[in-house]
Parts: sequence; C-alpha cells; structure tokens
Amino acid sequence: MLSLSTLETPCLVLDRSRLIQNADRMTARFRDSGVKLRPHTKTSKSIDVARIALAGNFGGITVSTLKEAEYFADHGVDDITYAVSVVPEKMPRIAALLKRGVKLGVITDQIGVAQELSRRAVAEAVCVDVLIELDSGERRAGLLAGDGSVVTLGRALHDLPGLRLGGVLTHAGNSYQCRSLADIRQVAEEERLAAVTAAAQLRAAGLPCPVVSVGSTPTATHGLSWQGLTEMRCGVYMFGDVFQSEIGSHGLEDIAVSVLATVIGHRPEMNCALIDAGALALSKDRSTAAPGLPEDIGFGMVMSQDCRRRIGSVRVGHVYQEHGMLTADGPFPFDALPIGSRVRVLPNHVCMTAAMYDAYRVVEASAGPVTDLWPRINGW
Amino acid sequence: MLSLSTLETPCLVLDRSRLIQNADRMTARFRDSGVKLRPHTKTSKSIDVARIALAGNFGGITVSTLKEAEYFADHGVDDITYAVSVVPEKMPRIAALLKRGVKLGVITDQIGVAQELSRRAVAEAVCVDVLIELDSGERRAGLLAGDGSVVTLGRALHDLPGLRLGGVLTHAGNSYQCRSLADIRQVAEEERLAAVTAAAQLRAAGLPCPVVSVGSTPTATHGLSWQGLTEMRCGVYMFGDVFQSEIGSHGLEDIAVSVLATVIGHRPEMNCALIDAGALALSKDRSTAAPGLPEDIGFGMVMSQDCRRRIGSVRVGHVYQEHGMLTADGPFPFDALPIGSRVRVLPNHVCMTAAMYDAYRVVEASAGPVTDLWPRINGW
Repeated sequence: MLSLSTLETPCLVLDRSRLIQNADRMTARFRDSGVKLRPHTKTSKSIDVARIALAGNFGGITVSTLKEAEYFADHGVDDITYAVSVVPEKMPRIAALLKRGVKLGVITDQIGVAQELSRRAVAEAVCVDVLIELDSGERRAGLLAGDGSVVTLGRALHDLPGLRLGGVLTHAGNSYQCRSLADIRQVAEEERLAAVTAAAQLRAAGLPCPVVSVGSTPTATHGLSWQGLTEMRCGVYMFGDVFQSEIGSHGLEDIAVSVLATVIGHRPEMNCALIDAGALALSKDRSTAAPGLPEDIGFGMVMSQDCRRRIGSVRVGHVYQEHGMLTADGPFPFDALPIGSRVRVLPNHVCMTAAMYDAYRVVEASAGPVTDLWPRINGW
Repeated sequence: MLSLSTLETPCLVLDRSRLIQNADRMTARFRDSGVKLRPHTKTSKSIDVARIALAGNFGGITVSTLKEAEYFADHGVDDITYAVSVVPEKMPRIAALLKRGVKLGVITDQIGVAQELSRRAVAEAVCVDVLIELDSGERRAGLLAGDGSVVTLGRALHDLPGLRLGGVLTHAGNSYQCRSLADIRQVAEEERLAAVTAAAQLRAAGLPCPVVSVGSTPTATHGLSWQGLTEMRCGVYMFGDVFQSEIGSHGLEDIAVSVLATVIGHRPEMNCALIDAGALALSKDRSTAAPGLPEDIGFGMVMSQDCRRRIGSVRVGHVYQEHGMLTADGPFPFDALPIGSRVRVLPNHVCMTAAMYDAYRVVEASAGPVTDLWPRINGW
C-alpha cells in the first residue's frame, strides 16, 4: 500500500478526516439558519470533495469557471451559480449547460452585458437566470447597494427576453484584509446589509428577488446575523490554509491540504536546506506577507511528515521553479531534516497551491495511510 | 477557422514566428562555438516547441522533472540531463529511463546521495551518469569550484559501482539579479570559470570530466567566452517574458507567449477594468517587482489583441483567482478596452504562466490565424 514514505514527491496530500470535520462544521453552522449553504468548488475542483461538502446541504454549488460547471454537471450536480462576471461570448457553453437541464445562474453588474446576453439567449432559445453582482466593500466588481443602478439593471434583467432576474449576489473578499474578529464581524454585517438593501430596492420597485446570496469563508465563519439572506457561498473552509488560520478562520491543525516534499540538499554554510517543492509545487502565492499578520511563512510552513508538528520555525523562505529553500530563525535544524527525509508544507493560499496538481493523494488521517487518488480539474 | 476573436478565454497563445526567431538566434549563437546547445525544456514542456529548439542542434535536452524526461523520451529524445539535485528515492524512474535506452544524466552535490544512489543503481543493475553540481554564485545548490569537496565527490562518483562521473554543471541563476550588460557578462564569466576550474580540479586528480556544462538565458545571450565549456543549457529564451526583456535578454517584441483575455467589467469610479484572467491564468509571479528594473508591470503587461502594441500604460495591477484588475497611470483608456474586447497579457515570468495551461494555442504570426493546439505537460 502507498504511504507517505513511498509516494513520489512533490505531491498534494489531502487529509480526509480534517476535510470532513471542516465541511461538517460549516454545514452545521447553517443547518437551522434558514440560509442555504452553496459550497464554492473553486478551491477543490473535485467531485469527491464536493460530495463531502454537499452532505447535509441542498445540493447546489458555486463555481468560478465554466469548466467547473461542466465538470460538476457531468457528475450530476444540477444547481450551479457561476459567480464571475459573465461575458456574452461565453453563451454557447452556458446554453449547452441549460439545455442539459442544469439550473445555471450567472452574474453581471453591466447593463450592456445584460442586453447582449439577452440577444444571444434568444438566439439560443434558452432562458438564463442572472443575478446582480454587488460590491459590498471589496472594490472589485459589482454595483453599490442603494444606488439607482441596481433597480435599472434589475428591471432590464426582468424585462429582457431570454433572461430572468435571479436575485442579488455579493462576496466580501475584503474580509481577507481584516485583522480582528470584530473587523470580520463588521464586514460580514456590511456584506449582509448590501445584499438585503439591494433586495429590498428590487422588491420596492415591484421586481422579484428570489436569491439573496453572500459569502466568504471568514464572514461565513464569524458573521452573527443572516437575516434576509437566502444563501451562503464559501469554499476555502473545506481545506483551510495558513493565511486563513492567521486571520482566524480556523486553527493550523484544521488545514487539510499540504504538499509532501523530500529534502534534497543541505547548505550548512548558508544555514538552509532544499526540498523538491518549488514555485510550481507550492505556487508563488505570498498571502501571509500581508501587513498585520502574525507570521510571514514565505512560500509555506514546514511540518513533520505526519503533519502533526511544525519543524522548529522552518519555512520555505525562497522558491525556484523546482527547488524550495528552507530557512529558519536561528540555527537550521539539519538533524531533524536529513537528506531524503520528507516534510509536509502547509500552503499560504490553498486555492493557488492545489491548482498546481491534477489529483489529491488522500490520507485517512494526517499520518496516513494513503487510501485514494482523487482527480481534480484545472483550466477553463 | 479559430481566430483570436473566437478562442475561449483565458487561453495561452504561442506566436510560432517569434518562437522560431528566438530559437534560431540562440542556435546560431552557438553553432560554431564548440559548445553544444542543450535546450532546457522546463519552460515549454512541449515536444512541438522542443523540436523547434533542437533544429540545428545535437539533440540533447535539459529537464527539471522526471515527468519531463519521461514525456520527451516518449517522443524520441534520448539524451537528457535532469538538472535538479537528485534524491535516491527517484531511482526506480531513473532506472526505467536508462533501461529504455535514454542517455540520462543526473546531478548531485552530496556524497551521501552518491553513496545511496550507487547502492540503488547496483540493485537496479544500471549505470547512472552523475554530474557534480556547482554553485557559481547563485547560492542555491552546488559545491564551490576550487574547494576540495569537488575532487572528493568526483572520486566517489568515479569509484562507486553503478555510477559514472559525467562531469560538472552549474547554472548562473544569479544573472537574474543583474541590472546591466556588464554585470551579466561578469556573471557569465564567473559561471564559466566555476565550471572550468572544477573540471581542471577533477582532471588534475586523474578523474575524467567529459561534460563541462553551464547555462542561463541571460549568460547564454551575453557571455563573451565559452572557453573550456562543452555545453550550454538555457530555456526561457525560446519564449521570453517581460522580466527577461527588462534585464536585457531580448526585446518586448520578441516575447512569443501571451495570455488572451476578455474585458469583463469597467469600474470608472475606480479608474480600472476587469479581465477574465486572474491569478490562475497568469500565475502570481511578480518578477518585475524586483528592485532596479525599469517598470513593475504588476501581474502582466496589457497589449492589443494582435500583440503589436501596448494599450497605454495598462497593466494587470491586481489579481483574484479568476479576475485580473487592469490599472493605468493617469485616466484609464476605457474607450480602447470596451467590455467584450480582447487583450494579450505578456507575462512576468513565462515558466510560471505557461505552467497554468495544458496546451498552447499556436498563431503563425502575432495577429493570427490560430493554426494549431500544442499540448504541454505539467506536474511531476
């Protein structure tokens, strides 16, 4: 049987027991809330992971690409929100999904997009659910709740042929900038208020607003009120990562995904060592370098092979394409990391790290054994 | 026929004419030099690209992973240097390649690795060519030329059963820190001197040193002397990227790989726009943020759809998983970038960006047409 000592390195290890624990915790949080949990699959891009996240929930998911939508539809998921600003050029694939019977929602904040989408939906003889994207403080995409443009766009979506006004949607990505529980709770409340304010605007104008959707892992984890919401979307909570642990979304011991790597060299005169996991194995994400966080872990935090304890203060201080350079505060613990020994590297941002792999090596518990290979998709 | 206006976005576009020009230029540079060009395939990971780089050369390649070695061997390449510190645990795959008739060289700077490699080579009944890795200034891996450890390791590699001392190898990765032609030439000379010094040490000790190998795109492009070398390894020159153009390895107009993306939103009140190419489509590489470079292009430089001119000063200033935020100095040129229009994003570091895709969309010239889909591999 494969074990953590015999797997080829670098590889992506998924701890099934931690995944189940993380998924169950979020599912339990919304069970009696009146809000449906619609897990975001952009982190995992795996039907095996999605099935665990969907257990005890209504069955709908959120995706970030049409390729995810197609993949999950192929595996039987039939209620999907594509939560990235749609462009009409993507209509052939959207129409194909609708014609397969998938209940697919898309989002926009642009009236010109709505008009062109309508024209193409009519040409394809489909009817597309469109949600209005709101900006609740992230300053990326979306209309501002309370602004007249919400009703203008809502009316267009309601009236244009081939479209159906699905509701409103926002994502408090700005929660990633929070550095305290109080701040996260405030952002969660702003996220909720943006959504319910826009929903009230639409309804006051005589328009329908069946879906009032919000979501991010920090706000879903710490928000205090869901009043007026119908739906919560979040994804990274299933796996966790060092960044999320540093902003308080979960503990380090909850992180379910790590990169298994082998020590390939020592440089005692430079007080560092090398592993066979570099920029491609870890990604170049540097989330923990953001201001105000407890520790910048470089490109990853270095744990023992069983992922149960950190090796001193060791981190991946620098990466090359296929080399990771391990550094430490004070003398490097060479004795704990002989050449050929293995480590588990916890990622800064698991969405980026997992995307460097086409499969998860699944362990039942942190120390193994390796029981499954779960494929994942990438690309568009 | 597919065109740049109809391809699904984001996708990776490869300009075949620029690729051929870049490859031919490097091949011509070494044609009468007495030094063999052994192209590095870690950037392209594509047999179609490798065939162009190998035209007019001896046929050997450099790889950064065993998966590359296996892939290129499957496509008929039979002389391969695996230029990342080997660990003995990888012996089964190395032995399998040798047994297929591939002339595979590996590298180490560790006598303990040599000993364990020998034990496993004997058990597998193979003989492995091992080159001594040298550190010519990069401060990553490798022995220092002139140090007694070079001869000690050389003798071990020569004497241990199952191993054959293949020569010496170094990579002047520190050339990436150079900010002037004079600096690059000095690093090229240090790279050469490290290799020839170590080769002379081995020969003076009565040991063979058939291969004296160096390489990096900047030093290969600008070095003035190859005396005593047998081999040059470089790879990024085939594609080029904005970082390499900023350190003077080539012009912006030589960059052969770009990401085709669609404008998906405008935020006039924030003076920015959004494209459907974010962190996964571009990578999070930030090479041009390094000190002393002419311009920090964020996560990519934004060109017209035909890739012939930059759109004002537009760059990808910020990325989210699937969104790229376009920013500019001064007023944002919304008129030049209507929603639905397409741009080509030139990458910071093409090795990282290309690794986010499983294929190249090949255009014959910068404006199209799209003539081929060339697969590439990723992973280990």
